[in-house]
Amino acid sequence: MAADVDTRINTNTWTMLFPIVINLIMSIICYMVTVRLIPKVKDMFIKANLFGIDMSKTTSEKVPESLGVVTGCTFLITMFLFIPIPFGNSLFNGDFPHDEFVELMAALLSICCMLLLGFADDVLDLRWRHKLLLPTIASLPLLMVYYVNFNSTTIIVPKPFRETLGFSVDIGIIYYIYMGMLAVFCTNAINILAGVNGLEVGQSVVIAVSIMIFNVIELSGSLWKAHQFSLYFMLPYIGTTVALLKHNWYPSKVFVGDTFCYFSGMTFAVVGILGHFSKTTLLFFIPQVFNFLYSSPQLFKLIPCPRHRLPKFNSKTDRLEISTTLFKYSELNILGKFVVRFFRMFRLIQWKETDGLIITNNFTLINLVLFYLGPLHEAKLTTILITIQVVCSVIAFTIRYPLASYFYDV
Amino acid sequence: MAADVDTRINTNTWTMLFPIVINLIMSIICYMVTVRLIPKVKDMFIKANLFGIDMSKTTSEKVPESLGVVTGCTFLITMFLFIPIPFGNSLFNGDFPHDEFVELMAALLSICCMLLLGFADDVLDLRWRHKLLLPTIASLPLLMVYYVNFNSTTIIVPKPFRETLGFSVDIGIIYYIYMGMLAVFCTNAINILAGVNGLEVGQSVVIAVSIMIFNVIELSGSLWKAHQFSLYFMLPYIGTTVALLKHNWYPSKVFVGDTFCYFSGMTFAVVGILGHFSKTTLLFFIPQVFNFLYSSPQLFKLIPCPRHRLPKFNSKTDRLEISTTLFKYSELNILGKFVVRFFRMFRLIQWKETDGLIITNNFTLINLVLFYLGPLHEAKLTTILITIQVVCSVIAFTIRYPLASYFYDV
Repeated sequence: MAADVDTRINTNTWTMLFPIVINLIMSIICYMVTVRLIPKVKDMFIKANLFGIDMSKTTSEKVPESLGVVTGCTFLITMFLFIPIPFGNSLFNGDFPHDEFVELMAALLSICCMLLLGFADDVLDLRWRHKLLLPTIASLPLLMVYYVNFNSTTIIVPKPFRETLGFSVDIGIIYYIYMGMLAVFCTNAINILAGVNGLEVGQSVVIAVSIMIFNVIELSGSLWKAHQFSLYFMLPYIGTTVALLKHNWYPSKVFVGDTFCYFSGMTFAVVGILGHFSKTTLLFFIPQVFNFLYSSPQLFKLIPCPRHRLPKFNSKTDRLEISTTLFKYSELNILGKFVVRFFRMFRLIQWKETDGLIITNNFTLINLVLFYLGPLHEAKLTTILITIQVVCSVIAFTIRYPLASYFYDV
Repeated sequence: MAADVDTRINTNTWTMLFPIVINLIMSIICYMVTVRLIPKVKDMFIKANLFGIDMSKTTSEKVPESLGVVTGCTFLITMFLFIPIPFGNSLFNGDFPHDEFVELMAALLSICCMLLLGFADDVLDLRWRHKLLLPTIASLPLLMVYYVNFNSTTIIVPKPFRETLGFSVDIGIIYYIYMGMLAVFCTNAINILAGVNGLEVGQSVVIAVSIMIFNVIELSGSLWKAHQFSLYFMLPYIGTTVALLKHNWYPSKVFVGDTFCYFSGMTFAVVGILGHFSKTTLLFFIPQVFNFLYSSPQLFKLIPCPRHRLPKFNSKTDRLEISTTLFKYSELNILGKFVVRFFRMFRLIQWKETDGLIITNNFTLINLVLFYLGPLHEAKLTTILITIQVVCSVIAFTIRYPLASYFYDV
């Protein structure tokens, strides 16, 4: 009897681990292919007019742009080749889990669609309103599958609110709006925390690794299938993205483009939604959430927003300094006045007054770091920002594990 | 009892027709949106360096290129919004047909992937070998679904061969290779029958309408579900493509790019494979098959192949004339010699000899038409080529219906 149970556990562990191991091997191959492919295709991008000039360098070399489309494609190809693996024996015994298969398909469809739209954005330079619309469209197949396979829109109420709201609340359609917005948020949040070499890719690697660790921890829990599913995506994603980081780190030999940010954001949204851990996914976005909230007065035009908010390169010192915006206090509306006062009070912005004009740094996390630490070399600045991301992930795990027990029954 | 049957038939007809009607309405809206959208986005393409100069015009205006990505996206958006419709009641009664849903997802994934790769090809100008590789990759999800949902690799043997081969033969893996090659063929066949305004789009409309008519006829048969499925794709496809044709017809205000040919070819391959009528689909490609076979001596370098094989524009007469290739007969290899002799014997090529050099037209259907009919105005040439396509579709229906009974039990 004991032997029987043992065998069953072993078989289950094997069922759980086998596809992950294959996926890991494929991800390593994917890394090796991508890291070699990127330098080979660079010239094609420059020839196609897809390049940028690095404003924080003394040279004005053409740096190929939108290389995210290359990693996106190697990711998709890896996933396409991986498709049959998780279904192993069920391919032959006629008891095929169509519901799991359709999740995989819908997830890949959403990611592929986002990659297409991201690349179209890079090439065609779409407008701001499209940047909000496109992820919404791309997430439609995902929401449809969520509806079909789960349609669970009930959320567990945190303990302190249970007396008023009860144990759980069905929020219905709001849950779908929330999921659609998650895709919009994830894609754009990475896009706006950008501007120094390696930052978009670096932060994405940290988020992906955090999700991966979370998945590995949860593999031993009852929802292991959802986390196994998430790992299928995270491992090849990390494979391609680390390959990209190698070429995108200071000094960048390639830029990644909106394509990469869209692709990454959608991949995170996909695993968060279909893996049922969208709240935990958001926890790994603390710096992005902060950067978004901090940026919003400029994004929503309460404070004048210059076209570029990147830090300013000082070629003499080879360091980056804060970039600034300037305005008349009296010309701000009430909300704008409140925001700058609030930010000033908490020392969240630099504040200089000359001739009735006010000069502050642009409201981005990058500028905030420079405001606190003074001018920094670009590589050091990126390292600090990535370190902040790592620290925030540690905080996220602390919230998710020890602290969550105060609010939920774990 | 009779009333009961009646009601059942009515319910079934309703189940069959309702999603098609909704799809038709959405396709009409899709047409209206696309036809207005194309002129609005033209400048974006030119700004992005995606344009061509029409070599058969006296002006050298920039014509935006790759507009196929626009119709591809409007097609996908229409399909995304349509996804919930066919599942109607089963969304609520818990008896959800995951196998049908997964077909829809895989079909869209293959099409979306092909659209991405096609657009990447247009922007980055990929090499010839990629043109063969990419459709193969994009068709992987499709083949996987075919394997899971049907895995029927048995073909019915035509009557004359039944004595030797039996009633049916299971060709196993060869069937999958055939399906993969179908995707490669469909995508490239449209791409090489091109070069005059409106031809790529025009032939695609004729093929799509032919498939649609075939589907409508077969809706009354026992395999109506497969043909209903195909119609879901063909109607919006026709909607977007007719919108594109309006702007691509002589004189072209936009070009469609490889994007369009890839997108179209994959859409036809998808419905052919998942609708189980891939042989019939191929029947609608008679001019493309002829053009491919006729071109192959040049494509496989048996005969010298200039970079462009488009007909030559004569600005004085405003007509297109055959374009030519020239070579020494003695320098051809045995196969090359055989081919030109064969073509010459059947008057399939123009043949001129001067100073030991041989001048023939380039081996394309377009040049062949010009060889028989003499120089033609571009709009007239396209009209003739489209008419050939229509005539071939009529022949295809003749083969499919009356003649097929000689070879198969219908």
